[in-house]
Amino acid sequence: MSFDPATDLELTRRFAAAPATVWRCLTEPALIERWFAPRPVVTRDVSLDLRPGGSFRSVMDVPGHGEMPGHGCVLEVDPGRRLVWTDLMRGGWHPNAGSFGFTAVLTLEPEGEGTLYRAQALHRSQEQRAGHEKMGFHEGWGAAADQLGELAASL
Amino acid sequence: MSFDPATDLELTRRFAAAPATVWRCLTEPALIERWFAPRPVVTRDVSLDLRPGGSFRSVMDVPGHGEMPGHGCVLEVDPGRRLVWTDLMRGGWHPNAGSFGFTAVLTLEPEGEGTLYRAQALHRSQEQRAGHEKMGFHEGWGAAADQLGELAASL
Repeated sequence: MSFDPATDLELTRRFAAAPATVWRCLTEPALIERWFAPRPVVTRDVSLDLRPGGSFRSVMDVPGHGEMPGHGCVLEVDPGRRLVWTDLMRGGWHPNAGSFGFTAVLTLEPEGEGTLYRAQALHRSQEQRAGHEKMGFHEGWGAAADQLGELAASL
Repeated sequence: MSFDPATDLELTRRFAAAPATVWRCLTEPALIERWFAPRPVVTRDVSLDLRPGGSFRSVMDVPGHGEMPGHGCVLEVDPGRRLVWTDLMRGGWHPNAGSFGFTAVLTLEPEGEGTLYRAQALHRSQEQRAGHEKMGFHEGWGAAADQLGELAASL
């Protein structure tokens, strides 16, 4: 309902693993670190307070760019089905300085034995959407989604 | 917990009305229009979908400045006690274009027959806090709070 093709981006993947296993990969910090950023970027020090208003933190080590700390806020948790978070805020609904400014809507639907995974990035404007696409949304989120599917299948 | 005196602002008021009555004024559109902006600014066309992720819309008619539409997103609803919303997003967790970028945390505590009202504005930085203070946070939110208290006492 809140997805707007003029301002937002999305991708889908079909995973062999069941939604419950994919959900673990979306929400357990030690598993998040194994898929969250496309290799060779390394994600570490993930913490996730899995409730509305909870903090979602991570650090990415980007070769050639150094360390990028990330601060987000959990918006919606529907276990096994839907996770929504944003980088507009950090824990406690607190506005974030220096954020890119998007909301991530991640949904899981059972499909046979597996999962239909959908990742949406909601933006404030068409310009921001175009910028995110140019930065490599499909490649970056796509590679991370593939890593997520592989990790879930291995569990 | 999320209030940070370095970046955030707050004010408190003591109201004669009980929390349940003040809560009505915070959440019923027809009542919101009667206190939300300091007179002579007129608030109209308020709609509020009172649930996490719900839309909060309004239009303010500002003498000498014209019409200012407002779009917000409800974050947290604890009836009679606590309402949190932000202008960083509109309904459906969708990032907002052109927002000032704050979170409003409004809390009601019973105090005798009346209510201790606390309004906090959370900001992304010390600079934004200073800007909001200079724009007249204490005068504007203060006048609106006084109107809220008078309205609640009249119900």
